Amino acid sequence: MSGAQDYKFEGWAGDSPDSIKGNLKWIEYEPKKFADDDVDIKVHYCGICASDISTLSAGWMPMDEAYPQVVGHEIVGEVVRVGPNVKNGLKVGDIAGVGAQCDSCLECKYCVDHKEQYCNKGQVGTYNGKYYRTSEGSKSWGGYANYWRGPSHFVLPIPKEIDPAEAAPFLCGGVTVFSPLKQYGAGTTAKDVGIIGIGGLGHFALIFAKALGANVTAISHSDHKKDDALKLGASDFLVTGDDVEDAVKGRERSLDLLICTSNDPSMPLNSYLSLLRPGGNFVLVGVPETGKLPDLAPFTIIMNNIHIGGSAIGSPDRIKEMLDLIAEKNLHPWISKWPLSKVNEAVPAMVAGKARYRYVLVNEENGGKL
Amino acid sequence: MSGAQDYKFEGWAGDSPDSIKGNLKWIEYEPKKFADDDVDIKVHYCGICASDISTLSAGWMPMDEAYPQVVGHEIVGEVVRVGPNVKNGLKVGDIAGVGAQCDSCLECKYCVDHKEQYCNKGQVGTYNGKYYRTSEGSKSWGGYANYWRGPSHFVLPIPKEIDPAEAAPFLCGGVTVFSPLKQYGAGTTAKDVGIIGIGGLGHFALIFAKALGANVTAISHSDHKKDDALKLGASDFLVTGDDVEDAVKGRERSLDLLICTSNDPSMPLNSYLSLLRPGGNFVLVGVPETGKLPDLAPFTIIMNNIHIGGSAIGSPDRIKEMLDLIAEKNLHPWISKWPLSKVNEAVPAMVAGKARYRYVLVNEENGGKL
Repeated sequence: MSGAQDYKFEGWAGDSPDSIKGNLKWIEYEPKKFADDDVDIKVHYCGICASDISTLSAGWMPMDEAYPQVVGHEIVGEVVRVGPNVKNGLKVGDIAGVGAQCDSCLECKYCVDHKEQYCNKGQVGTYNGKYYRTSEGSKSWGGYANYWRGPSHFVLPIPKEIDPAEAAPFLCGGVTVFSPLKQYGAGTTAKDVGIIGIGGLGHFALIFAKALGANVTAISHSDHKKDDALKLGASDFLVTGDDVEDAVKGRERSLDLLICTSNDPSMPLNSYLSLLRPGGNFVLVGVPETGKLPDLAPFTIIMNNIHIGGSAIGSPDRIKEMLDLIAEKNLHPWISKWPLSKVNEAVPAMVAGKARYRYVLVNEENGGKL
Repeated sequence: MSGAQDYKFEGWAGDSPDSIKGNLKWIEYEPKKFADDDVDIKVHYCGICASDISTLSAGWMPMDEAYPQVVGHEIVGEVVRVGPNVKNGLKVGDIAGVGAQCDSCLECKYCVDHKEQYCNKGQVGTYNGKYYRTSEGSKSWGGYANYWRGPSHFVLPIPKEIDPAEAAPFLCGGVTVFSPLKQYGAGTTAKDVGIIGIGGLGHFALIFAKALGANVTAISHSDHKKDDALKLGASDFLVTGDDVEDAVKGRERSLDLLICTSNDPSMPLNSYLSLLRPGGNFVLVGVPETGKLPDLAPFTIIMNNIHIGGSAIGSPDRIKEMLDLIAEKNLHPWISKWPLSKVNEAVPAMVAGKARYRYVLVNEENGGKL
């Protein structure tokens, strides 16, 4: 079942916060020791995720000890090596992908219950993580690279109906919003769904909320992306503008679920909450770099039985469910492709907010198609 | 079915924030016009609720137009008059009670679904409210009084097994915590329940969480009330003390549900949240007078799929369910009784935090027993 390793692990690494300005450097590095349940993937495509930027730039936390760092956790490519205990039926030659999580304890209540992202021992990130279940202490390295190695439990075959380049950004960005949409009943118990923020995550959320059968309201501070939002899946568009209290007037208690992809710490949270029906859920998926939320008004929450929650990425089971829906409904993300060799142009463009709505790096030497 | 009215409506009224210092005055007032579905209650008992204090003192909002105000919304007494469309099988001579809500539209989705406290047109408070369904524009008057008049939909017979004096404080304080304990599965889906704050609401929450079969942890900033908490229903006691981060260490992800009866805007919210298991709920029931909550750490919420919610009082159906449980399990609140005539001593004692854990005013002239 296993192939011999005749390749080196190399990728575009950041070694300081400045790396997001176009200063990533091609380096060779040592991956984890190959374990019985690991796979190696020859990377064809890797999405650029906002988390990559916040990690490289140390926006969420100090990163001094983590440099050099190869980021990228929306990885699709060809399986080139499998261990004897490989999971998910993977075999050499398969097109498969891995998202933002690549390991966990696989034994605790949450792992067993298919909620591996909430593992009691902690999830291992596909980059900037430390393995502990196998190859203890090894650093994890992401997908701005030629090869990726990691536990097969978190690697899923990409259905043949899906373009592998399009599959990539769904593996983190997509499932990050698909997971709460499913958990909180979009299209079933939550018929009326609002999506706050029309960026990378928001565009996935519009696609999925509609595919799941919800009535979708896109919520944005301006009307610049109105046409896009309507094409992506929204049937209604709410511009919050300069006077958000006025903007939400008449729309109170009109939605069952709000997926908040904004990470603006000054967002008008209490106005957003007024849009929810009693029992409704507001779900955060974007983490502000300040680590803070706006002030909450307890009266609003109490008098409307509202829930403010958060959701982290999605489990392998959820990713599989998402891929099946993408294949079944023929869903397509809006992506632009960049040659991997132009990563130092792509990352600054992503930082500048130019993506409409996701960037995918293409490793042409490995067989990726621009 | 109806009795003629040969009584006046009189009660202890506040006419300024100073009234909580012992300056309530006995006044006569005009109740709402008697409607076909109203009842009159000859008040025997009325609990003193923290809301009474925040209302009289204008702690939550300016009250200038609301004075004079007779508060009290934990009312039990004898039904002395019923309209031809009386609800809940009430008849003259019954011992019945009303809590903090006395009316709503009775037509919207939430009213029909037995969630009247979240009525789309708004709940009418048992005091400091304005009726709109019948006797439109009339002010509502509370239970520090000799008689109370209002819609029978919100008035429930008190089961014979329950001491009417003890029933009173359950009608607001009790159901305010019983309602979220039931909604969030205490004893069923939420086996491990924490109660934050051991005051009036907290003491009810300990009683009910245990009665519902949960493992109960009482959480307090000091150990002063430890013995009380263990007697009330806790099997574990967590002192947060001066170093809350240290206090919660080792207890992370140990609880399914937190009922927060504290309304301290400087409470260590993020440390409390660390106690919750993924998918867990933190439910606010106490409203800080500042109208603010402490800063929330989005990372904690997202990485643990935690929900911060709020719950307002309880519907008539929930009150009935609670009364049935009290009767079945022979539950008792910890109360002290005060003659209604000593209300100007009782209210300042309540303000000073002396209640262990609830005060009940007794109208001896009307048949209440000290």
